[in-house]
Amino acid sequence: MSLIIDCHGHYTTAPPALEAWRNRQIASVQGSAETPKPSELKISDDELRDSIKANQLKKMQERGSDLTIFSPRASYMAHHIGDFNTSATWAAICNELCHRVAQLFPDHFIGAAMLPQSPGIDPKTCIPELERCVKDYGFVGINLNPDPSGGHWTSPPLSHRHWYPIYEKMVEHDIPAMIHVSSSCNACFHTTGAHYLNADTTAFMQCLTSDLFRDFPTLRFVIPHGGGAVPYHWGRFRGLAQALDKPLLSEHLLKNIFFDTCVYHQPGIDLLTAVIPVDNILFGSEMIGAVRGIDPETGRYFDDTKCYIEASTLLSADDKHKVYEANARRVYPRLDAALKAKGK
Amino acid sequence: MSLIIDCHGHYTTAPPALEAWRNRQIASVQGSAETPKPSELKISDDELRDSIKANQLKKMQERGSDLTIFSPRASYMAHHIGDFNTSATWAAICNELCHRVAQLFPDHFIGAAMLPQSPGIDPKTCIPELERCVKDYGFVGINLNPDPSGGHWTSPPLSHRHWYPIYEKMVEHDIPAMIHVSSSCNACFHTTGAHYLNADTTAFMQCLTSDLFRDFPTLRFVIPHGGGAVPYHWGRFRGLAQALDKPLLSEHLLKNIFFDTCVYHQPGIDLLTAVIPVDNILFGSEMIGAVRGIDPETGRYFDDTKCYIEASTLLSADDKHKVYEANARRVYPRLDAALKAKGK
Repeated sequence: MSLIIDCHGHYTTAPPALEAWRNRQIASVQGSAETPKPSELKISDDELRDSIKANQLKKMQERGSDLTIFSPRASYMAHHIGDFNTSATWAAICNELCHRVAQLFPDHFIGAAMLPQSPGIDPKTCIPELERCVKDYGFVGINLNPDPSGGHWTSPPLSHRHWYPIYEKMVEHDIPAMIHVSSSCNACFHTTGAHYLNADTTAFMQCLTSDLFRDFPTLRFVIPHGGGAVPYHWGRFRGLAQALDKPLLSEHLLKNIFFDTCVYHQPGIDLLTAVIPVDNILFGSEMIGAVRGIDPETGRYFDDTKCYIEASTLLSADDKHKVYEANARRVYPRLDAALKAKGK
Repeated sequence: MSLIIDCHGHYTTAPPALEAWRNRQIASVQGSAETPKPSELKISDDELRDSIKANQLKKMQERGSDLTIFSPRASYMAHHIGDFNTSATWAAICNELCHRVAQLFPDHFIGAAMLPQSPGIDPKTCIPELERCVKDYGFVGINLNPDPSGGHWTSPPLSHRHWYPIYEKMVEHDIPAMIHVSSSCNACFHTTGAHYLNADTTAFMQCLTSDLFRDFPTLRFVIPHGGGAVPYHWGRFRGLAQALDKPLLSEHLLKNIFFDTCVYHQPGIDLLTAVIPVDNILFGSEMIGAVRGIDPETGRYFDDTKCYIEASTLLSADDKHKVYEANARRVYPRLDAALKAKGK
């Protein structure tokens, strides 16, 4: 039996006090209120427990997944709001809550950090929070937002040296980054229906056109939402790499880039698993996330992605073990170490 | 036998004089040269003939396609350069060349117009060129760029009244628009590897969140490149529509939105045809376009999309007829009329 590790979960169900505090912070950024203190946010362990038991943990148990790599709500990161201090305070609060959830449910959640990014600010300012999360909280990965402007795409591509301070720390601590944008403040882009998927595709192509992984051979990115448009257009990307005189994608990118299974129908998962080597696919659901309803065509939750893996006729039992557990242990070595420390 | 109609071809092989003229125009925009006159661009019919015979027509004959809906090179539209007058002169030149190609090869090419869009300029300024192309040139469709800024996404969504003057003319003349961006001047977005696909996904989601097709029940959009990320994430889009209390996508969007087959590998085409109703799929290759090489895995050109349709085990002979011919005749009624006038 594999341990079923979901590499992609966010704390989307935090007690309402969190959003109320954030709304006060946003009001202060807009000049219409005092800056709230972090100490004014009070959420008890019981509130945290209830918010998880009734939601993520309940669904994990119903669906049969064991452990979720758990990070702050992606759409609420909203790095475009305020300045670095705004983001630093907000990231610290959100990461601490995920840490407390992981402490309350150590068998079911382990943390991944949001970073206090801010548009136009040097990413190295994120390092103290990154290290706090890894060293003090035992987090096993980070979420890196390639567009902290929220849909205006004003930062350099991920291949630019701008980002290298983060990569150096990732390599030092042997943690991967999930490349994950936050909410869009550009009216052109619906957050979960366009911006997320576009960012996935964009990030992959930024890596493809560069030699980033020559500079960082052990750097690892998880591109969520099944890689955006990438697997569906795998022939296009293979052809573009060839035209750009890059090595085969298996050599050029697939030692460093991994895709999750957040694709919410069987044909999508079947394409993903047909096209992308199984060693590069990590089980993920983003439950409870963007798509919370039940698919009338199947009677199951759209985001119950384990169903699609189970129903796959392309994946062998060994393949499924890789998708559910072995790949996550390899891509997140600190997760593997934490599990081994518990005899798992 | 079906007529094989390729709904997606651009004049990417125009004689070098065209690019030289454009470079002079760009230099003039930058203030480093005189504005060139359109009359200074001289391209003979023989040059046009050669540029087509050695390229698009040669490949069409090799691959067995009959007729291409032919528009100016998408990446060269570059609506972000200069002002409305820059775009107006450039669009007129490019459209006229496509018209001349269609006159030289009337059995093999029929025109679709680029519009003289310019960031921040009212789209109604495009109407004279649109009408010239339809009335004087017999063009059967247009390309509409949802982001004339070239990757900065500064225009309103396609559902906004901003675009309605174009839609009113499309309905009046019964022509569809292919939603097609141009080159990206944002370093984050590779033009053909990210910006094109992102725009496809973005446009679909802009339609999904709106009631645009309630205002324009007969408006038709062709979303190219196999719909960007959309078919791969069809479950996600069905789920988002449901969460937004929209009708089923078949009702809400698929009377008005169509996808081409510019997906450059068999698994992608198989997914497209498995997920999207066959009535909504139009044969397209974008040959000669973004991906010009030969796939080492198949020995065939990546963009020889007819191969994938032919090899499909999901499409019946009737289905293939729809993809190759019948759907194009329905979506482009002026194409159908032009063919019928020739007894086809």
